[in-house]
Amino acid sequence: MIYNAPIKDMLFLVNEWIGLDKVIALPGYEEVDAELFEAILEEADRFSGTELLSINRDGDEHGAKFENGTVTTPPGFKEAYTQFIENGWAGIDADPEHGGQGLPKVLQNLIDEMVGAVNVSFKLYTELSRGAYHLMNHAASDEIREKYLPKMVEGVWSGTMCLTEAHCGTDLGLLNTKAVPAGDGTYKLSGTKIFITSGDHDLTENILHLVIARIEGAPAGTRGISLFLVPKILVNEDGSLGERNAVNTASIEHKMGIRASATCTLNFDDATGYLIGEENRGLAAMFKMMNIERMTVGLQGLGLSEIAYQNARDYAQERTQSKAPAPRPDDSKPADPIIYQPEMQRQLLTIRSQVEGARALSVFTGLHVDIMERSADEAAAADAENTVALLTPVIKAHFSDLGMSSTLSAQQIYGGHGYVREHGMEQLVRDCRIAPIYEGTNEVQAIDLVARKITGKTGEFADRFLASWQEFLREHEDDEKVAAIVGPAAVALECLIDTTRWLREKVQSDDATARGAASQYLRLFALTIIACMWSQIIVSIRDKEGSFYDIKRKLARFYMQQVLPETSALAATIIQGADALADFEVSDLVGQ
Amino acid sequence: MIYNAPIKDMLFLVNEWIGLDKVIALPGYEEVDAELFEAILEEADRFSGTELLSINRDGDEHGAKFENGTVTTPPGFKEAYTQFIENGWAGIDADPEHGGQGLPKVLQNLIDEMVGAVNVSFKLYTELSRGAYHLMNHAASDEIREKYLPKMVEGVWSGTMCLTEAHCGTDLGLLNTKAVPAGDGTYKLSGTKIFITSGDHDLTENILHLVIARIEGAPAGTRGISLFLVPKILVNEDGSLGERNAVNTASIEHKMGIRASATCTLNFDDATGYLIGEENRGLAAMFKMMNIERMTVGLQGLGLSEIAYQNARDYAQERTQSKAPAPRPDDSKPADPIIYQPEMQRQLLTIRSQVEGARALSVFTGLHVDIMERSADEAAAADAENTVALLTPVIKAHFSDLGMSSTLSAQQIYGGHGYVREHGMEQLVRDCRIAPIYEGTNEVQAIDLVARKITGKTGEFADRFLASWQEFLREHEDDEKVAAIVGPAAVALECLIDTTRWLREKVQSDDATARGAASQYLRLFALTIIACMWSQIIVSIRDKEGSFYDIKRKLARFYMQQVLPETSALAATIIQGADALADFEVSDLVGQ
Repeated sequence: MIYNAPIKDMLFLVNEWIGLDKVIALPGYEEVDAELFEAILEEADRFSGTELLSINRDGDEHGAKFENGTVTTPPGFKEAYTQFIENGWAGIDADPEHGGQGLPKVLQNLIDEMVGAVNVSFKLYTELSRGAYHLMNHAASDEIREKYLPKMVEGVWSGTMCLTEAHCGTDLGLLNTKAVPAGDGTYKLSGTKIFITSGDHDLTENILHLVIARIEGAPAGTRGISLFLVPKILVNEDGSLGERNAVNTASIEHKMGIRASATCTLNFDDATGYLIGEENRGLAAMFKMMNIERMTVGLQGLGLSEIAYQNARDYAQERTQSKAPAPRPDDSKPADPIIYQPEMQRQLLTIRSQVEGARALSVFTGLHVDIMERSADEAAAADAENTVALLTPVIKAHFSDLGMSSTLSAQQIYGGHGYVREHGMEQLVRDCRIAPIYEGTNEVQAIDLVARKITGKTGEFADRFLASWQEFLREHEDDEKVAAIVGPAAVALECLIDTTRWLREKVQSDDATARGAASQYLRLFALTIIACMWSQIIVSIRDKEGSFYDIKRKLARFYMQQVLPETSALAATIIQGADALADFEVSDLVGQ
Repeated sequence: MIYNAPIKDMLFLVNEWIGLDKVIALPGYEEVDAELFEAILEEADRFSGTELLSINRDGDEHGAKFENGTVTTPPGFKEAYTQFIENGWAGIDADPEHGGQGLPKVLQNLIDEMVGAVNVSFKLYTELSRGAYHLMNHAASDEIREKYLPKMVEGVWSGTMCLTEAHCGTDLGLLNTKAVPAGDGTYKLSGTKIFITSGDHDLTENILHLVIARIEGAPAGTRGISLFLVPKILVNEDGSLGERNAVNTASIEHKMGIRASATCTLNFDDATGYLIGEENRGLAAMFKMMNIERMTVGLQGLGLSEIAYQNARDYAQERTQSKAPAPRPDDSKPADPIIYQPEMQRQLLTIRSQVEGARALSVFTGLHVDIMERSADEAAAADAENTVALLTPVIKAHFSDLGMSSTLSAQQIYGGHGYVREHGMEQLVRDCRIAPIYEGTNEVQAIDLVARKITGKTGEFADRFLASWQEFLREHEDDEKVAAIVGPAAVALECLIDTTRWLREKVQSDDATARGAASQYLRLFALTIIACMWSQIIVSIRDKEGSFYDIKRKLARFYMQQVLPETSALAATIIQGADALADFEVSDLVGQ
């Protein structure tokens, strides 16, 4: 299996499309320049494509092991992790005051895509730490931040996110884990958390669990949830490691994929915890971390799509089978490489045109995270925050779905050779399959988009957001040089705007219908927004010549003609299909 | 995991929709009646839902083992196989003269669906035998038939289909396996075959390999392929087992799924083979077997969809999480079963409305196999043969794709619990994933449909076939009681007919475009034909009352409003998307 990060495409998007100057203009990024950006991407590519990719297959075969109460990562993971932290990858977007490099999120997104492509399991040991760092940096007291964060940025301590319990995944308001004040400002936590990614492992000296629990006497439901830091090993005043805390690993899961990642059941048995933020406000704080994770889970899907594409493309060049349609590349041969078969090209281009469009959306959103966090212009920062809030569920769900369709399609191109373990294509499918499930299922993302992001105050922003794209497309749809791309995007956007209006009304008047159409709406939204990204890219290179740009134009057109038509069917299904769904009673489904 | 065969639905389709009298009217089926039919289905359900389902999970965990040159099946497989043959399941549709029960194909299809639902690996040990039996019964000499077939029907000998070699899967014309006349009427075969399902195992006393090879001096390509019977153990004149033949198992594959099924690499080293049929006409004969296998592979996808549905539906009833939209089933509870969430209902109904429609297509096609094989009316038999030829690639590809979308969706309903191995949902996905690949990839099926089945002589039949459905739909589209179902089907069929015309013209004028649209066309064809099935069912129960029929009407409407709209997007993509695909040169894909 090979992986070469699409650095040329990445730099094209950053330098030529969004413009690196927009990033550099933000306070704190003054020292970023194109050379630094490129150098980091190249180093990330080297590290991903060699070190991390090389241990991915063995990691799957071997799996994380749980013996005598502790977890061992597969061979090579420790060495790779040591390199990872020594090279500073743990602190790319962390604060310099904690030893971080303070680099832009748009860069972090591109790195996340690479690491997600080559080794999802490895990525999981690092990405939860990054989320935990940002959550603590955002919500914890100065004391806690000073004591814990430098070690996280150094990568010698890692983090987790402890939300799920056996009876509550999506619905955290049902949680049972209890926190009792110990009288000294700390709390004693008791309960069992399941599905805790990197809940235990041998890569770091300490693990900082961020745990949601209910303080004794707190209100029921989500309004009674508080957030705690529960270190695996308690940390002394001087920062040295002290006693083992009362957190124990009960078991790890046997999973379809990401088998090198330890997914733990953790027992908290009067474990010492430190309150993060205010009492009963834990879930709101936790969303800081969840949103980071949601974005990066989407990027796993994007990365896996890219590596699936690269390998299927190469295989299709090597594998000769059947004759190509005329004109054949070489009439003297009994068969041609299957990449000459139009069906293989169609499948490859379906992946690639979506991947490149999705990557543009990743860069676009990364830029808006940077603006949200850094911009001195309050209005711009607020708009950026709304943009990120709107696009986060879209990226999480749509990119992870894209990961599934891409890895399945790439596996299909290998034929029987894709089904055997040897070539690694089937691992990509299995590793990807978790992405539409964890960090809030894609159905939860869809409900978030429909019930929160396109309604109320954020709904007003969503309207402005879509209207600004409409304005952009209208401005260019009569321009002959780009009309073949902008035109279809404009039609799809019109349809999205109409459907948004219809659905928003339903959220008020007929909640069940709105919820039943949420996933289809998210897909309609995502396909259309990516068409907008493609349109803006094509407008930006309108007068540029050369094969690199010609291929971008062809890909954009392919996207519009081969991928985007689904949007009209989605809109029809949402609006006309509502009655057929509403017809059913639960008893109709279960009666049989 | 549970499985209850949908016997009520099956009997409804056979008795009330197609009419069992049509089957009974065929020569040789005089003794079939509704009671017998029902009794066999119930027994198949019992055997599948208990014996075969109970060893499915362990079969996956344990896998087939290869040691010291021989294959061992997982624990329980031998006992289950013994029961299988003792109860006569190996000979359901086999000829009574060989000890078979001579029962209808329409029944066999329903049994295949059940066995495919509960244990694909087990099914594979039996289904290749069935195909080999029919191939030999069709093409072998009387001597061979008398000597080998009774043992196959008894189930003590099994069969395989040896086509694929390392460098040729789809393109069998490239094969290298050689056959040299031994001078005594037999041949010596040498070569290596890969991906041989049930190529070796411990369930039967002998294994009959049906091998394609090139006789020395035969023409290159597909016109020089002959078919041979190569028994694992040579059979003496008196039918007793003799010497071991020179066929050896080199290895078995490590696969994503169907891990209990042994997928073998077989070495033939001057192995004794008996010619089946004429020299150089082996591929045509082999298609007899391949078409049986293609149908039954489709039925695996259908069966897996059904078991996925049943378990996800039950899980959605048990799992409480979040509040349902008003009116809630019980306001006093903190959360409701997730089956009250419209999104869960939508996903479940998307599976079920397709599964029931696909099952109708299976019954319809099964009936036509029976007519083709039995009818005394030559014209009817010829039409039925054309119907089966037209629908075989559709069933293989569309049902296996449906299997993937259904198992993935059902897994999604389980959330994180679907990703761990415990509940078995992830195994359904892995086991299903081979169905779109083996027995000719779904892309090969699509090319078969486009380049062979809708063009030339069979194309004339396809036109008549579609026109007869058009006539049927037109007859009923103004009938208020069924218009909501028949109307959308008629629109989709109109669109299919137009697209068929367009595509057929392309097959002549622009082969590359036709090939590039083949998979999308197959999907358009399948979705539309299933809409025709649903329409005919709904017309047939037009005046019937009761909840069973009401649910069928709701499901049909759901199919039309929630599933069928994709057809318009597919047609648009096929016709308008052709240019975007044609724009690309292979160098555009590989240049980067």
